[in-house]
Amino acid sequence: MPKKVDHKKRKQKIAEATWRVIVEKGIEHASVRNIAEEANLSLGALRHYFSSQDQLLAYTMELVKERATNRIERIAAQNIPLKEKVIAMLLEMVPTNEQTRVEMEVWFSYIVHIRHKKDKKSLEADGVYEGVQLLMNTLQHENLLKAEVDVEKEAEALYGLVDGLAIHALFEPAKLPKEKLKTIFTIYMERLYK
Amino acid sequence: MPKKVDHKKRKQKIAEATWRVIVEKGIEHASVRNIAEEANLSLGALRHYFSSQDQLLAYTMELVKERATNRIERIAAQNIPLKEKVIAMLLEMVPTNEQTRVEMEVWFSYIVHIRHKKDKKSLEADGVYEGVQLLMNTLQHENLLKAEVDVEKEAEALYGLVDGLAIHALFEPAKLPKEKLKTIFTIYMERLYK
Repeated sequence: MPKKVDHKKRKQKIAEATWRVIVEKGIEHASVRNIAEEANLSLGALRHYFSSQDQLLAYTMELVKERATNRIERIAAQNIPLKEKVIAMLLEMVPTNEQTRVEMEVWFSYIVHIRHKKDKKSLEADGVYEGVQLLMNTLQHENLLKAEVDVEKEAEALYGLVDGLAIHALFEPAKLPKEKLKTIFTIYMERLYK
Repeated sequence: MPKKVDHKKRKQKIAEATWRVIVEKGIEHASVRNIAEEANLSLGALRHYFSSQDQLLAYTMELVKERATNRIERIAAQNIPLKEKVIAMLLEMVPTNEQTRVEMEVWFSYIVHIRHKKDKKSLEADGVYEGVQLLMNTLQHENLLKAEVDVEKEAEALYGLVDGLAIHALFEPAKLPKEKLKTIFTIYMERLYK
């Protein structure tokens, strides 16, 4: 009986090989051929799942986003005070450990890689803007924000702060350890609260 | 009599050709050969000034930084209230027009390009961190900040906000026109003031 192949698992393995190639060699080396080699698959086997590099990269990015979204949803489901939850969620949007650093590195490389392509995705495809918008709306709904806070502008500002700190933490992790990021987010959010 | 060559001007012309190649084709095409062609120079003439691509790119980035610094220094010398000056300076650190958009695009491409190189420059080499630190220190010195403001942490946060908004404005200029950036910076800074 032929071995049954778990297709979803295999696709994930290919995506993980893609991450490794991007992190170790740079996205310019993330050819279908190099990734097949890293994943220990024949080119034909890889092509069975992904017929082009674009497809493969798009799937890989979806997986990065899915992982981050899952972590954030787990925090959302926790039974902790909302203000604590907000900080925990913001900390999931910046690199604070090896795993999130790899994810961010991969995402950042991708965004830059597709920058000059015609069918480029919007920068917002990473879900960060949606995330901070949801946070701000929830805080307003719970009546925790100062009266003068303009939720739409604050979402834009917080989105800027999150992505800026994320890039700084990615490039110079020693300067922005998790505790420092937590303090910065806490000070920032406290100013918006009643 | 042989024509006298203005070396500084010629180097600037080469740097500008480099910008055009980076913005139009992407930094991966910024080879010494392509840049010589864009600058209408022979490869030999270009090599007279820059013996390697690394040298050429480094000079080009210095020029970008110099232009931004000059603009900021001109604002610093203006006779306007400090709070207004702060906003004007912050607006020089994000892309708000064609010229600054090109500079930011070139700088961003370069930072990513050297990301995996051994002798990579620090992200801070663009002077933005120094800039916001100087702003915060000046504001404190002038006794304009609330007592609880931690200048070092606020500089880190403002640096994050500036770079995050800069990248967002670069990728999606229509979403962050100058007026909106001005409003975001103003709201942000007002919260730090007494």
